[in-house]
Amino acid sequence: MAAKSPAKSTATTAKESAPTGQDTGRRSTARRSLVTRDVLEKATLLFAEKGYETTTLQDIAAAVGVSRTALYHYVTSKEELLAMLVEQMSVALADTLAALRAREDLTPEGKLRELTDMLVRQRAESPQQFRVHDQTESALPEPMRSKHRQARRDVLSALSAVIEEGIDRGEFKPLDPNVAAFSVLGMCNWVAWWYHSGPDYDIDAVARQISQSAIDMMAADDATRAPADSAKAALATARSSLDALERLLPTDGA
Amino acid sequence: MAAKSPAKSTATTAKESAPTGQDTGRRSTARRSLVTRDVLEKATLLFAEKGYETTTLQDIAAAVGVSRTALYHYVTSKEELLAMLVEQMSVALADTLAALRAREDLTPEGKLRELTDMLVRQRAESPQQFRVHDQTESALPEPMRSKHRQARRDVLSALSAVIEEGIDRGEFKPLDPNVAAFSVLGMCNWVAWWYHSGPDYDIDAVARQISQSAIDMMAADDATRAPADSAKAALATARSSLDALERLLPTDGA
Repeated sequence: MAAKSPAKSTATTAKESAPTGQDTGRRSTARRSLVTRDVLEKATLLFAEKGYETTTLQDIAAAVGVSRTALYHYVTSKEELLAMLVEQMSVALADTLAALRAREDLTPEGKLRELTDMLVRQRAESPQQFRVHDQTESALPEPMRSKHRQARRDVLSALSAVIEEGIDRGEFKPLDPNVAAFSVLGMCNWVAWWYHSGPDYDIDAVARQISQSAIDMMAADDATRAPADSAKAALATARSSLDALERLLPTDGA
Repeated sequence: MAAKSPAKSTATTAKESAPTGQDTGRRSTARRSLVTRDVLEKATLLFAEKGYETTTLQDIAAAVGVSRTALYHYVTSKEELLAMLVEQMSVALADTLAALRAREDLTPEGKLRELTDMLVRQRAESPQQFRVHDQTESALPEPMRSKHRQARRDVLSALSAVIEEGIDRGEFKPLDPNVAAFSVLGMCNWVAWWYHSGPDYDIDAVARQISQSAIDMMAADDATRAPADSAKAALATARSSLDALERLLPTDGA
């Protein structure tokens, strides 16, 4: 039972006694990080419900079920909670995506699949965190705000780089890589707005469909898939579309 | 000059004298709606910057450049402004999409192209309105909240219905229509987060690429796919190819 819901059972322990010294060692560190996660989750829900500005540390302590004094063992300010949210939602993600981008064992398609799968699952797991994180950007104190913005740029550039790699190899259509990256991000991020775990959606199926959609919108047509130079391919596609147009339009005088 | 910037010149007139009776007739109605639009825009920016809760009618009056008494000719409460935002951002859109869905002269692909084009352009034109509208959902008083939720469901169901129609006709892949609809909505809605008018992005090219991406992620494999079915579709494909070509060719003098 305890093994099944460690976060919950640890939070209960924390209510009884907050860690006081070095006697508990490694176990205390693990417990501390679980309680901190619980605090962060409760705080995020409050920020989402009441707004960041109007939420107090007292509200957060009450939601976690500890006294305000006990809460101070874990966080000392709302700003610190925001900083943790940024760290979790963008900095850590940006690092993971950068590492994925650099992997040499994956094709651009393989990388795109992994990237989108990871994004969809993270948004589905922490929808409130993602939305609050997005809404509170303007409340972030420095240097958190710069760190957050840099992480956002890093996520975008990892995704754009994978798309550009696919275009260069003739595997992806010659799309605008930034617009394509934003489209994929939008598709994945939006999961935080609509996904609810439950019988309606199976997260594995959702992640699979969205990843496949991202690949399908990039994939070069079979005709243009050859590593032939892409300008030539684009010109050929334009010409055949114009041919189709000619056939479809009424002839002169008709 | 006045004809070039009616909203601005009318706003100036409003500062001098708010409409007082039925003497101005139709002109007054037009002016009123322009000023109201200006008020709504300014209010939205304030909601985005300061938060809905902390913005006062006095702040809004100051931003518009009128007295609070003059503002009362146009709006009587913040709730009324929120209601207008809902009307503009979701109810009107839901109606337009429902009408588009019912058009018999368009294939599912043609409908999807029109729907996404419309969504992308609206998000690009009113990014703050869309984001504030999304963030303030919980602040909406009844019956606005229900109206807003119904409109959101209507937008989703119009899009899902078009996708289902495409699947039934064998033109689209047999995807989960709701997940596919949310993916398309995410891709379009996200424009409100990243698009800035300016030299970086041409809105026509952006709308074209996103619409084409939505179609490409739905389209059944070539084996089951119908040929370009409308002049508009052929033209859109030709234009996307030309956009790609433009990006691929070295710039002048390079």
